[in-house]
Amino acid sequence: MSMMDEVLENQIIGRIAKAFQPPPHRLNRIHEADAEIIDLGGGSDKYLAITTDALVEEVSSGLYDDPYLIGWMLATVNFSDLAAVGADPLGLLITVTYSPRQDEAYIGRLAEGISDACRELKTFVLGGDTNEGRELQLSGCAVGLVPKDRTVSRMGAKTGDKIYLTGPAGIGNVFAFLRLTRPGPQLPGLVYRPMARVAEGKLIRRFAGCSMDTSDGVIHTVDTLMRLNHCRFVLNDSWEKTVHPVALEVCRSQNLPPWLTLAGVHGEFELCFTLDPQREKEFLEEAAAAGWAPLLIGEVADGEGVFFRMAERLVPLDSGYIRNLSAKAGSTQEDYIRQLLGYAQKVGV
Amino acid sequence: MSMMDEVLENQIIGRIAKAFQPPPHRLNRIHEADAEIIDLGGGSDKYLAITTDALVEEVSSGLYDDPYLIGWMLATVNFSDLAAVGADPLGLLITVTYSPRQDEAYIGRLAEGISDACRELKTFVLGGDTNEGRELQLSGCAVGLVPKDRTVSRMGAKTGDKIYLTGPAGIGNVFAFLRLTRPGPQLPGLVYRPMARVAEGKLIRRFAGCSMDTSDGVIHTVDTLMRLNHCRFVLNDSWEKTVHPVALEVCRSQNLPPWLTLAGVHGEFELCFTLDPQREKEFLEEAAAAGWAPLLIGEVADGEGVFFRMAERLVPLDSGYIRNLSAKAGSTQEDYIRQLLGYAQKVGV
Repeated sequence: MSMMDEVLENQIIGRIAKAFQPPPHRLNRIHEADAEIIDLGGGSDKYLAITTDALVEEVSSGLYDDPYLIGWMLATVNFSDLAAVGADPLGLLITVTYSPRQDEAYIGRLAEGISDACRELKTFVLGGDTNEGRELQLSGCAVGLVPKDRTVSRMGAKTGDKIYLTGPAGIGNVFAFLRLTRPGPQLPGLVYRPMARVAEGKLIRRFAGCSMDTSDGVIHTVDTLMRLNHCRFVLNDSWEKTVHPVALEVCRSQNLPPWLTLAGVHGEFELCFTLDPQREKEFLEEAAAAGWAPLLIGEVADGEGVFFRMAERLVPLDSGYIRNLSAKAGSTQEDYIRQLLGYAQKVGV
Repeated sequence: MSMMDEVLENQIIGRIAKAFQPPPHRLNRIHEADAEIIDLGGGSDKYLAITTDALVEEVSSGLYDDPYLIGWMLATVNFSDLAAVGADPLGLLITVTYSPRQDEAYIGRLAEGISDACRELKTFVLGGDTNEGRELQLSGCAVGLVPKDRTVSRMGAKTGDKIYLTGPAGIGNVFAFLRLTRPGPQLPGLVYRPMARVAEGKLIRRFAGCSMDTSDGVIHTVDTLMRLNHCRFVLNDSWEKTVHPVALEVCRSQNLPPWLTLAGVHGEFELCFTLDPQREKEFLEEAAAAGWAPLLIGEVADGEGVFFRMAERLVPLDSGYIRNLSAKAGSTQEDYIRQLLGYAQKVGV
């Protein structure tokens, strides 16, 4: 079993994918990039980047119940995968299956959410397919272009690289935790409306070793990059910097360890990327000139596994165990949160 | 209300689409092509063709219950839309949401069906997304390239053009009729496994005025082309030629008028296209050299509407009424078939 196959969801993907011939014009192998990178042939100086993502659990669990948010997220999850490979979006295709429970106003708000997310990213809905069915079903496909000499994928981390995020994380899990465990007002002082980091991705593609979005949470992302690149990923324990202020506040009030907001499976849409230290200064200058401050969260080392760097020691994290908690069939949200908390107590972080 | 909006399903698409800004780099407007035709910018001599299609009603109604067929059809419906715009496929992306009812063997057969359809078309699965959900949900996105000087869309029919099909039609509706109305063996002597007409599309794109697939049945296709091009579409009543021999045989044994196999909404995946008579000879020679015999089914005339040319008269067909029968909420398969039969008796064809 490969290191990637120790993760349950990868086993399922692998079982389906084994029926398919690897496309000779696809540059990445399975799991190796957030979006597929396709050689267009001819004399094109660009690759096509293309990805598909459905909203399923988030809608069926009630985590997303506002149609505007659902539409917004359908665009965001797909464009975030394009952002991770540094692509300039050409646009989005959508399939919407609605049931008699979704009236015209609902569908209108859903379309507005999709439209507004596209507008913020200066891109477009290219087309789609609508169907009538038994329940609401949504999937998207985002497509873009990336210069051939500036592609970035999940592959390319190496010992000594710095690990960065486009911005503080943890909001996605805190949003899910509050939505699923208690009624009433949710994120204090914050509307949950994450943005795909498309503009940042275009800078990252010129500098980064590897890049992946945090849509399944930072720990999941780092675990995947670790397995694919056969390196050790060491994260600093400076949670007050890595974790979003609103998420930190919720952790304080709920008495939760802040790093758990990076461990849950409902991530946000930051990009996690590695940087050769020799290129760090130039990258940070260009990022500052573009008005954003990338967040240093750790470094890549020899070995394998995910570790936290505490004041005086390295704490190994069983990131495979953490990931598989979310993929276990039949477990409830409450089970999941309890098991995460149990693991946090066990490692004492 | 535009002529396109007299069709109920187009009203729903229009309501969703009105929230979206038309993409400046999309060459077609809504409804004007089976796949979206996208300008890639730069110096590319090709357009991107991209389309998305979900399998919903066909699966939930039980019409497709064999996982291999479901997989095959997921690829076929998407590549057929690419074929209609004459694109060379780059590949397919899939989203598969499976429920606990689909075991590993089921998912394996589904993947085989997708894989075999791709292999027959010399193309590939590029990537996908898998999710666990309450019921099986499938959507696809096919992407390809088309030379800029050889695009074809649903627009471009003109008076005097000949109307052609890539091959005899009616199999899709006969398959659905038998599957949904009686148990036991289905199509006599025929496995239902339609192929997207990708190779034929590449010849058609060099000659045709307009092109569209018959995935919703020939009458639906002709009705759409009629509305978009503001012409009259006159179909010959030579059903023994236009309707597939197996479909003809079923019509004889069931005492059904053969043209009803063109009227139902479960079409096949032939292409319907128009041809300037001046280019007909050259086109037919090239088609013959490639080993296929396009089927002349009628001609485009001044005016509007869809007509049958009988021995001594033109019979107007209320193709809008026929289309809307299938889109009426709450109607059953039995209602639908009875209403189609009722209409056939009324017009006496």
